[in-house]
Parts: sequence; structure tokens; C-alpha cells
Amino acid sequence: MPERDVPSLHVCITCREGEGARLHAALGALLPPEGPVVTLREVTCMASCTSGCTAAISAPGKWSYILGALSVDHAPDLLTYAAVYAAHPSGAVLPSRRPESLRQSVVARLPAL
Amino acid sequence: MPERDVPSLHVCITCREGEGARLHAALGALLPPEGPVVTLREVTCMASCTSGCTAAISAPGKWSYILGALSVDHAPDLLTYAAVYAAHPSGAVLPSRRPESLRQSVVARLPAL
Repeated sequence: MPERDVPSLHVCITCREGEGARLHAALGALLPPEGPVVTLREVTCMASCTSGCTAAISAPGKWSYILGALSVDHAPDLLTYAAVYAAHPSGAVLPSRRPESLRQSVVARLPAL
Repeated sequence: MPERDVPSLHVCITCREGEGARLHAALGALLPPEGPVVTLREVTCMASCTSGCTAAISAPGKWSYILGALSVDHAPDLLTYAAVYAAHPSGAVLPSRRPESLRQSVVARLPAL
């Protein structure tokens, strides 16, 4: 997979009680060293504080998805979802194709520019 | 302003009771014919139904902002905000620089890829 097709997974690290920072660290520990399925990035405030711990997945030419109400326990499922997203041509992964813990997590989605 | 710098304003036209479609039409009627400050686009579902009528502004290299709880009455203020956003280097317009009706409207924001 060319590097430009690797999705970015942005994790808000400023959310309450440090859950975002813990989630970011857990994701980093789970990424396979031989070639990550996502580029992990930290963000200072995604302006979605009422949604709790928040992350977003995006890639050039694809829909971006913002997910809320996350916790450190979602880290493995987020990477599973990222792999499905990476393989999907538009990024519009149906809820039924997401891990069950993430089916109700979408805060919003945004078309590619 | 080169066309590539014109932000896109996506309006979800599938939200309840047709408010998104009315907002999209109102925005279209308000855009100046001599050169719009935004490229207006309609979207079928932004997956943010609990936020009510939703729109998003984005531009290459800038933060994207998703706004919810909108109505057709927000159309003029959305275009005012779009002009401020277009002129802002990163798109991270402070709430105090947004029209008052839009200061509490942000559902989430997303960094540029």
C-alpha cells in the first residue's frame, strides 16, 4: 500500500481525565512496527468535548469519520476499523462492517474535498 | 483569491423535516454571482442526525469544522463565517470571530490531512 493511502487516525489528547492521551498511547503500543495500517496523530482539541474522548479517521479522497465516547479499551477495535477503512475505496464503511464496540460511535462524517 | 483556496461548505440535505434542504437553497440564493466566497455542496447524510441540521466547512490545508443545530435562519451568518474562515490561514477561527448565532454550533473539528 503506498504511503499516501495510509489513513490518518487523529486522537484528541486534551479530553477530560486524560482518556485521549491514554488511548493515543495504547494505539501507539499496538501498531505493528513492520508497517502501520494507520498514521497515528495526536490533536490538541477537536472541539467535541461533549462527545467525550474523540478520534477521527481520514485519508485523501475519502470520507472522514469522527468518533466519540471512546476509551482506551477501544484501541484494538479502532485499529481493526482502520484496516477496514484503509481497504474501502470511499471510506464509507457501513456500521455492520465496524467492530461492534464502534457501531454507535460516529459523531459526524465529512466528504472528501 | 485562487479557486483552490475557496472553502467548501457542505450542507447535509437529509436531516429531519427538510431543514437542511431549505438551508442549502437559502445559501445558494445568497451567494454573490460575481464570485462565491464558498463552493456550496450538498451531502446525503453526514451521520450527525442527533446534532440536527448539519453543515461543514473545509479547505485544503485547513482545519475542517462541523456545525450542528442549524436552521435556514443561519444562512447569512454561515456566509459571514465562511468569509472569515476563507481569510484565516489555518481555518481555526476563534468562537469570538464567528457570528454570535454560530458560537456554540461546533460539533467537532478535524485537522487537515
